[in-house]
Amino acid sequence: MSKPTIRSIAKDLGLSIGTVSKALKDNHEISEETKLRVLAMVKEQNYVPNPYASSLRRQKSKTIAVVLPEVTDSFFSLAINGIESVARERGYHVLIYLTHENFEREAGILQQFTSGRVDGILMSVSSETSQSEHVTEAINEGLPVVFFDRICEDINTCSIITNDFECGYMATKHLIEKGCKRISYLNIAPKLLICRNRMDGFKQALDEAGMKLQDSSIVTCSHEAVENEAAIQALLKSKKRPDGLIAPVEKLIPPIYKVCENLKLSIPQQVKVVCFTNLASVEFLNPSLTTITQPAFEIGRTAAINLFRKIEKKREEPKESIVIPSVLVERNSTRNQ
Amino acid sequence: MSKPTIRSIAKDLGLSIGTVSKALKDNHEISEETKLRVLAMVKEQNYVPNPYASSLRRQKSKTIAVVLPEVTDSFFSLAINGIESVARERGYHVLIYLTHENFEREAGILQQFTSGRVDGILMSVSSETSQSEHVTEAINEGLPVVFFDRICEDINTCSIITNDFECGYMATKHLIEKGCKRISYLNIAPKLLICRNRMDGFKQALDEAGMKLQDSSIVTCSHEAVENEAAIQALLKSKKRPDGLIAPVEKLIPPIYKVCENLKLSIPQQVKVVCFTNLASVEFLNPSLTTITQPAFEIGRTAAINLFRKIEKKREEPKESIVIPSVLVERNSTRNQ
Repeated sequence: MSKPTIRSIAKDLGLSIGTVSKALKDNHEISEETKLRVLAMVKEQNYVPNPYASSLRRQKSKTIAVVLPEVTDSFFSLAINGIESVARERGYHVLIYLTHENFEREAGILQQFTSGRVDGILMSVSSETSQSEHVTEAINEGLPVVFFDRICEDINTCSIITNDFECGYMATKHLIEKGCKRISYLNIAPKLLICRNRMDGFKQALDEAGMKLQDSSIVTCSHEAVENEAAIQALLKSKKRPDGLIAPVEKLIPPIYKVCENLKLSIPQQVKVVCFTNLASVEFLNPSLTTITQPAFEIGRTAAINLFRKIEKKREEPKESIVIPSVLVERNSTRNQ
Repeated sequence: MSKPTIRSIAKDLGLSIGTVSKALKDNHEISEETKLRVLAMVKEQNYVPNPYASSLRRQKSKTIAVVLPEVTDSFFSLAINGIESVARERGYHVLIYLTHENFEREAGILQQFTSGRVDGILMSVSSETSQSEHVTEAINEGLPVVFFDRICEDINTCSIITNDFECGYMATKHLIEKGCKRISYLNIAPKLLICRNRMDGFKQALDEAGMKLQDSSIVTCSHEAVENEAAIQALLKSKKRPDGLIAPVEKLIPPIYKVCENLKLSIPQQVKVVCFTNLASVEFLNPSLTTITQPAFEIGRTAAINLFRKIEKKREEPKESIVIPSVLVERNSTRNQ
């Protein structure tokens, strides 16, 4: 018989991994009956939860994993540099795994880790991820996990995030102060907490200004450049054309500038634009772009510091969210000239 | 006694790994005496070269490694996407290792692979790498290696590159045709073959046009933004200011635009600029930037296809260089307006 794991216990009992995990932690959400069933199976299979048994194994790889959606976004490539700056000091290797925004790939990657390949995981979830069993399983196999930027809300661990709600609010308020009367928000990845928070901030700012949500206030974008160009073109050609645009991810910059050029709409005179990005070149765009600039390097660095704290202490710590705020940098794309 | 490796054989004989490797392949560069010493030690230690013994082991990980300098450059992040597009079809995982342009990190990363963690390696060497023993060692442990973009010239394997000499030549000729009389090349990473080739193309084009190399024709840049800004500022403030600039890497775009703005030098009227980059946003810079655009995704894809060919065939193939050409895309930074 192979070594029992939390997965095999769950399977044998017909329960989810999360339920077994909670039962083992005597969580109040789980009935006494279920807890007794789980404990009986644990005893029968002689299962030892790994957080206590695997410290020796974990110390061997001197490697941490970074699981994230992509590297073609400046937020992630800078966050990786922040993570590596800490890992290097400690003599650790960093492995980067890309999920390409795909949940199945993400789950498959995490499953590999239970073989002892890495000592801990830094993670920013894919835009498809709405479950967290794959993460629970890794944690229960003794692997510390710290989230950065894109988190699983129901996992009890440390998360390093930025103030996304305030950023959505701040971007919108900035456009209103610059005189925009019809602002559109280019929505992307609605399953992600960060995206929902940014959009909630947008809605709150509109509401406070007494501006009503219209059909064209929220436009759905995707991860495909061609589709995004079509969606933005349709929006900017519509009768009720917005005079302000908020883009929550940097991949929307080229389609926005391209469509404005095609339609001969001038930024900022006819459309003002704010975008979330950390690209160094935004300063030199035509016109220079007003941005929400995230502390990407610092978020990566702080996530790594907290992961090493977990690896070294080898004990559970309370759930904690560390918020490192972003800033709005005003440039010509929102200036009244 | 631990399992003998090519490293332990080399150490025991006081020879380099490369020499042992060549001796085992009956290479004419190695003396008969040395070959006999190597063969005696191989017999004594019962060493089995892994290319023949490890196919079983190699098939197990279903993982390939990509070893490259950084991901904050669009060439590399797009090449990764090309690599992953092939790996995904074959059900392989891709691990990304960053060397941060440091040779020791690169050698340390390759040493890890001999434990069977990966089935093959795609590699673009660091700007410090001028030796290749670490690669020879991996190959001799049975790991197929394919280079892309930045190669080790003396390793007998498949390499996917672009036409760097022609690119340097093409960029320079373009500036000459646009009327530039004093062109400066911002040199970076002179140890790298790609950088030497680009610069040689620059020199050749100057020579053909009867333009002499001046003190200010070649300016040394680094991987540090602050230093680069200072170097470009000194160049553009000098009496014999160039009227054309060639930047062989995209990290030089922000300092060039910034210094021109600070010194109130207009691009292209006073200085024309060509840069090697794949950034989508160059089209929207002020002014839009003339680029040498590399087939980054295609280079990554082709490298992965050739690595899988090696993994599957499990045999040595002749050294081969596949050249996928880059193109010059003219935009406003070199137009006469």
